[in-house]
Amino acid sequence: MSEAGSPILLLAPLYPPTQAELESRHRVVRLWEAADPSATIDAVAGECRAVVTHSGRGIDAATIGRLPRLELVANYGVGVEAIDVEACRARGVAVTNTPDVLTEDVADLALGLLLAAVRRIAQGDRFVREGRWPKGAMGLTQSLQRRNVGIVGLGRIGAAIARRCAAFNTRIAYFGPRRKAGVDYRYFDDVVALAQWADVLVAACPGGPETAKLVSRAALEALGAEGTFVNIARGSVVDQPALVELLVSGRLGAAGLDVFDDEPDVPVELLALDSVVLQPHQGSATHPTRAAMGGLVLDNVAAWAAGRPLPTPA
Amino acid sequence: MSEAGSPILLLAPLYPPTQAELESRHRVVRLWEAADPSATIDAVAGECRAVVTHSGRGIDAATIGRLPRLELVANYGVGVEAIDVEACRARGVAVTNTPDVLTEDVADLALGLLLAAVRRIAQGDRFVREGRWPKGAMGLTQSLQRRNVGIVGLGRIGAAIARRCAAFNTRIAYFGPRRKAGVDYRYFDDVVALAQWADVLVAACPGGPETAKLVSRAALEALGAEGTFVNIARGSVVDQPALVELLVSGRLGAAGLDVFDDEPDVPVELLALDSVVLQPHQGSATHPTRAAMGGLVLDNVAAWAAGRPLPTPA
Repeated sequence: MSEAGSPILLLAPLYPPTQAELESRHRVVRLWEAADPSATIDAVAGECRAVVTHSGRGIDAATIGRLPRLELVANYGVGVEAIDVEACRARGVAVTNTPDVLTEDVADLALGLLLAAVRRIAQGDRFVREGRWPKGAMGLTQSLQRRNVGIVGLGRIGAAIARRCAAFNTRIAYFGPRRKAGVDYRYFDDVVALAQWADVLVAACPGGPETAKLVSRAALEALGAEGTFVNIARGSVVDQPALVELLVSGRLGAAGLDVFDDEPDVPVELLALDSVVLQPHQGSATHPTRAAMGGLVLDNVAAWAAGRPLPTPA
Repeated sequence: MSEAGSPILLLAPLYPPTQAELESRHRVVRLWEAADPSATIDAVAGECRAVVTHSGRGIDAATIGRLPRLELVANYGVGVEAIDVEACRARGVAVTNTPDVLTEDVADLALGLLLAAVRRIAQGDRFVREGRWPKGAMGLTQSLQRRNVGIVGLGRIGAAIARRCAAFNTRIAYFGPRRKAGVDYRYFDDVVALAQWADVLVAACPGGPETAKLVSRAALEALGAEGTFVNIARGSVVDQPALVELLVSGRLGAAGLDVFDDEPDVPVELLALDSVVLQPHQGSATHPTRAAMGGLVLDNVAAWAAGRPLPTPA
């Protein structure tokens, strides 16, 4: 660990090679290992000018307020909804994130969940492992062919999901705050109307207060008993109690879920349900993508330290 | 059940609406329900001119030999390797199958298995259901991005798999008995060389003696500890004992398997393995595709009965 320069406050562990590299370049204080985190913040407050955090951890306004010399919050992850970006802006603190490098892996997982939910792949895997096949066939499932896929949020990740879906002979439409220029997919200005049209609804929008419960109870009811919901965005973007209730009662057909309210806690009602496929927030959890995300964090910190323009301001 | 005309011998159950329609049009003898199947064959042999079977059941030369008036074997399924096609040809018995209508669903399942194996989706689902997430992250997986996908057999289904893989930023190559005209994917004339090049190897060739163990022990060893094998073809096309041994020992990285030797029996060593995703032969097992397959069986039987050209001779 280098003792040179002011300390960087690291709020949570990073991809280990990235963290090792950061610690070789800077004096890093690991807040999650502190016996008394509040005392540790006070101890570094006089000289700490940079914080590194990740999307699941963020940083709140109170902590920002306790770091008077703060200049940079570098986030490991693309979503910055757990960072009080307004408090940073008001103080002139720069915020960076790690866009683009995780887009394709997250879209791959979305298609994996979509296919697993529609074709009941995790259910089939259990069926074989539990020795049920010799007693009779598993039964037929839905097909993805010629189905309508509605994408909530056609940003980088949503567009990457749409590109993949096009190779599966699906029809594609999307919801967003506005119609995208140069995009041929059908546009809906209302999520419920999109869900009514769709056989499969995929949430791919940012988290945060603006999209809270954007996929509402009414949207899930419109998707219906033959419909499939996929979420690789954030647990907050769907009405989770309604999602659970409709899945349990069969009024929503199936779901593939990578994200939840209150992760790592998952509603217990989902754990025994054959109609869902559950992932522990694995969207970007691949070795090459986590390395690339870590590289962007290092690049942003290095640019800040050298007084150069930040590569990826959020 | 119509009693008109000569009986159609049905060797195994079909998609129920198809079977109901067949039985409304013809006198159908359900062989699998017979107390003494051999006696039943003898009882119908004098007048039976058509057999309906499916890919998992087929019909052997001995049975064909016991039906001297046989004119048609209509197969429900594209693969006819369980039908003694040579014995049929020698007798002038026509064989029909159900191509094309199942291609896209089988390719969808191939991609589902491929994504599930590379991104460990069934493993992640178990991780969440077993309550392990709150105790710590699942860990990182491989990425599919910029990986090499080798396809063994670029027929209808292999080509449909390749089209899908192209949307996932993969490089694609194939093995087949000969280079395909008008195909830009890289060609290998040797499966081991293809497996050496590939990160993911997908078997999509027909079954039968010509392709028995085409994916050999040497090919699986060449694929290696970081490699993934996907099989939506037939259990016979891979050296299954070698596949099991290499997966158990970690010398093959992962597998997504829809088909096995001796279905519905699955090697017990695979049932506890996190690195595999297992399906009970669900490739074409969707409602719309089974209905379309059944429709082709009915069309072939109707054409035969009317003396018209057969729509889909095998």
